[in-house]
Amino acid sequence: MNYSKIFPFFDFLSPNGKRLIEENTIEKFYNEDINVNNMLHDTCLGIVYIISGQIRCYINTEDDKEITLFNLLDTDFCLFSASCIFNSLEYEVFIDIKKNTRALIIPPATVKRLNDSEITFLKYINDLMGRRLSDAMWTIDQILSKRLDERIIDLLINEYQIRGTNEIEITHDEIANHLGSSREVITRMLKHLAMDNLITIKRGKVIINDIKKLI
Amino acid sequence: MNYSKIFPFFDFLSPNGKRLIEENTIEKFYNEDINVNNMLHDTCLGIVYIISGQIRCYINTEDDKEITLFNLLDTDFCLFSASCIFNSLEYEVFIDIKKNTRALIIPPATVKRLNDSEITFLKYINDLMGRRLSDAMWTIDQILSKRLDERIIDLLINEYQIRGTNEIEITHDEIANHLGSSREVITRMLKHLAMDNLITIKRGKVIINDIKKLI
Repeated sequence: MNYSKIFPFFDFLSPNGKRLIEENTIEKFYNEDINVNNMLHDTCLGIVYIISGQIRCYINTEDDKEITLFNLLDTDFCLFSASCIFNSLEYEVFIDIKKNTRALIIPPATVKRLNDSEITFLKYINDLMGRRLSDAMWTIDQILSKRLDERIIDLLINEYQIRGTNEIEITHDEIANHLGSSREVITRMLKHLAMDNLITIKRGKVIINDIKKLI
Repeated sequence: MNYSKIFPFFDFLSPNGKRLIEENTIEKFYNEDINVNNMLHDTCLGIVYIISGQIRCYINTEDDKEITLFNLLDTDFCLFSASCIFNSLEYEVFIDIKKNTRALIIPPATVKRLNDSEITFLKYINDLMGRRLSDAMWTIDQILSKRLDERIIDLLINEYQIRGTNEIEITHDEIANHLGSSREVITRMLKHLAMDNLITIKRGKVIINDIKKLI
């Protein structure tokens, strides 16, 4: 594995840091639609780097709604799976595999040793934390300033861009979980959008009639 | 100034790191109710440590509502005032002085040098970022899972605890800005709470009739 091309911080590590990565990083494959949360979070798997695939990070609100915080795609890192090392990430974040995912895992003991000795590694983690914090603030903005129908449209456009097709395989339940809403409300909203000819609703699927009209 | 007692990371810095802090940290005093955002954010003041006082960090949503992210109190650090160093904190966070505040400022050039060489400093910053991220997720949870009247009650209890009095000097506008709502909606909600004998509304003031009933 050519870690130099994979991890942006690798070339700047000390020889010892490089050796730690080379000897301890593990490649894993996760099948889609498996909730690997117990594996990734509770047992503290370590830092997960996505070679290819998609991981969804979400929180459960007090009244048991889900809301998507971020979708991690190719070349993204997941830190929440290493919360035993990054203690201040105390908020429980859940993780779903959304697409078949090839990943590299840096185990907790290795993360801890890098964290204790490698400036470049720490700076990179810092940067990631800041980005996630900015993402979370963007989510707050969206929740407060946009109406739900606009947020559904944003979600559909986003899925269109990620998947590269106008046939979005997604259930009303899944949309509700992305947006922190309920299935009933989402179904009603989707019907409005369908009546406006923006989308067509099929079983387990939302078809975007014309992406230009949606944007 | 005994930095060893003030900054939790100080004792673990290298001699050079300690000298950087000692030679460059500045003490400042800010008067309350001045919006120092231009001073703290746009000009990138550096890391602000609160000796005593209160700073409110908030964001402006797309439709121009404010929402409070966190109130920073005695011994808290503000990182958003150093976003020129922590580039990934790209989301614009605004800052208000809520109480007369004595603060220590670590200027950007010093932050950068510590950031480039001091492991303990980086680990501490990492920890702070994680905590702020957890706070932001808690805010998302609150917005989605609680009704507005419950969030007003939570805010009043919180202000009661910070101020140590049941006479909370706060306008309906300010409550709206804390919670990302509008003044009209807040006024209506407060009237409901007053009708339930939980609070008394005075000009520029909300009086908690009996804190036990509110909790």
